Amino acid sequence: MSTNSVSLSPTGDPWLLTPGPLTTSPEVKQAMLHDFGSRDHDFINVNRRVREELAALVDGNGAYTCVPLQGSGTFVVEAMLGTLVPPGGKALVLVNGAYGQRIAKILDYHGRAKVVQECPENEPVDSQRLAQALADDADITHVVAVHCETTTGILNPLKEVADTVAAAGRKLLIDAMSAFGVIELKASDLQFDAVAASSNKCLQGTPGMGFCIARKGALETCEGNSPSLSLDLYDQWMAMEKSAQWRFTPPVQVIAAFGKALEEYQAEGGQPGRLARYRENCRILIDGMERMGFQPLLPENLQAPIIVTFMMPDNPKFEFQAFYDSLKDKGFVIYPGKLTIADTFRIGCIGALGREQMEAALDAIQLTLDEMGVALLSPAA
Amino acid sequence: MSTNSVSLSPTGDPWLLTPGPLTTSPEVKQAMLHDFGSRDHDFINVNRRVREELAALVDGNGAYTCVPLQGSGTFVVEAMLGTLVPPGGKALVLVNGAYGQRIAKILDYHGRAKVVQECPENEPVDSQRLAQALADDADITHVVAVHCETTTGILNPLKEVADTVAAAGRKLLIDAMSAFGVIELKASDLQFDAVAASSNKCLQGTPGMGFCIARKGALETCEGNSPSLSLDLYDQWMAMEKSAQWRFTPPVQVIAAFGKALEEYQAEGGQPGRLARYRENCRILIDGMERMGFQPLLPENLQAPIIVTFMMPDNPKFEFQAFYDSLKDKGFVIYPGKLTIADTFRIGCIGALGREQMEAALDAIQLTLDEMGVALLSPAA
Repeated sequence: MSTNSVSLSPTGDPWLLTPGPLTTSPEVKQAMLHDFGSRDHDFINVNRRVREELAALVDGNGAYTCVPLQGSGTFVVEAMLGTLVPPGGKALVLVNGAYGQRIAKILDYHGRAKVVQECPENEPVDSQRLAQALADDADITHVVAVHCETTTGILNPLKEVADTVAAAGRKLLIDAMSAFGVIELKASDLQFDAVAASSNKCLQGTPGMGFCIARKGALETCEGNSPSLSLDLYDQWMAMEKSAQWRFTPPVQVIAAFGKALEEYQAEGGQPGRLARYRENCRILIDGMERMGFQPLLPENLQAPIIVTFMMPDNPKFEFQAFYDSLKDKGFVIYPGKLTIADTFRIGCIGALGREQMEAALDAIQLTLDEMGVALLSPAA
Repeated sequence: MSTNSVSLSPTGDPWLLTPGPLTTSPEVKQAMLHDFGSRDHDFINVNRRVREELAALVDGNGAYTCVPLQGSGTFVVEAMLGTLVPPGGKALVLVNGAYGQRIAKILDYHGRAKVVQECPENEPVDSQRLAQALADDADITHVVAVHCETTTGILNPLKEVADTVAAAGRKLLIDAMSAFGVIELKASDLQFDAVAASSNKCLQGTPGMGFCIARKGALETCEGNSPSLSLDLYDQWMAMEKSAQWRFTPPVQVIAAFGKALEEYQAEGGQPGRLARYRENCRILIDGMERMGFQPLLPENLQAPIIVTFMMPDNPKFEFQAFYDSLKDKGFVIYPGKLTIADTFRIGCIGALGREQMEAALDAIQLTLDEMGVALLSPAA
């Protein structure tokens, strides 16, 4: 199985087994080889199509609108919180990882009232505790949840959370950054006011913009809420509806690439098609890693097919930086861990890659273990 | 002189005679044809070089640092204001156009105390009035000035402003968006605490990031000032110094393109070299337009070689949208006016273009006038 050859992407880059920036297709990157005026008719058409296709993904029957924003995913999460949670509101944040913590931090920056309901990083958020907290505190207006917590790769039970929030008559805001487009999220199935995501995760565009898909009836009430002009989604929405233009210089090449990425997404069969490929990538990865003796952090029923956290091997010859560097030399970039509860590392299974790349990555990992003289399983195992 | 052929850039796009997004070189766009992990060694090296080269442009003898930020130029202007003007501070904003107005609006979003000193759009800001205002109001801690106001293309007297601010013992923040890298701005010549600019103006990168070059001694005091996590330049600076990484997913392709754009900038001779080309572009443009009977808004001594505002011709056969569309068909994108004082349009002279493109643009304009049956000068003239 082992090979000494280096595996590289069609543009000569290592494969990024990371949660973003991730590997995009050559065609997506080639869409960036043009300059566009921001008031240009062709650019405006791409922008309109991107907004419409994204809004359609939540199956909201015309009740939702997509507002794109310059910056990284965090910028649009912050914009969603600043615009949708009014100054007199109070947010309950469900936390089981670093991205939930970041939401709490943003609310502190904004001076918004908040409570945090935290659970361990290897457990899904708890809808029953949420129901109790909402019953106990009538001041809470919004609940904020992370769909897939990239810290571990855990899938949170969004349907249960949404039903709990709706039953208590509160509003739900979702950070679906690393799940959007792959893990089903439909307004016809669960109630939410807004969801934030980015061009550069499961939709496989290049980084530089995010978007918020918001219920128009909710966003309409948000004039004057935002503590930031740049991150004011209400103002951005109004400007786009009026002129079809961005308020401030748009990242035109990133948007052109995103337009191409959405074409490829539709060609792959949209959400079910992409989920099937990522599921296979994830299965190949976990099976192969387990065969070598690595242990995933999460049980199968909690694992989203996005990024997998593995326990750091308890072997004195295993040194993570050397492991990382060797894999990079062989054409695969993995990701350090971000956990507080255990020493771990992460391998992503999203982006423009499939069975062939996942198997080649496993070969490179086995070869690296051999080179390091690390045997994780006893010869008998 | 006229020709029926369409002029297009090497990547088949119309030439953008606009203040950004603007025409970038093919090589700058080709630098975007790769994927990079955000923790990747090569990417970190590009990022470090970009930060160092930008900081060096202000000739600050090591006292200044460059903090890049995701988003458009306005994002980094907002970040500069939110981070550098503390909650107890008070800003005086010098306004002679839309970008000065935008600064005042951002301060309102942040709830910062401010006064606006406004003058007409076709006049430079007034240092004597500024001196008086600073003498009259001891609460003012910061003055905010726009170097080149893109609304008209007017060059503000930054040296006079800076000397006035320094003499009054206050701090200066500069929005140098459309001037940075071309109009000289040296810490050895004038005192300032921070300047904000973008990848996508005179430095000829692609849009998607900006940067703030701040005096370290000033930025060091700014912990906890920012009303926004995403736009907190202090936090962004600390993270970059510690790990050489961006806090949140960086627009890796845009940064790679910016690295290439800075190489081209140095190869052109840096600030003096690029200024010489833009000055020639601007002279060719104004001379040619005047020969056809168009009138620039500004006198020569106030005109920056960035973007030129022309009065809308007083001729019933001249219709701006038809003029704009015809030029677009011929391969040149111009810009509508943004003035309140007069009906105007704008033509930029920045980006990856020179004498050949400026002359071809003039040919296209003459041809369009002929097609419209518009003669701006009497036959005798």
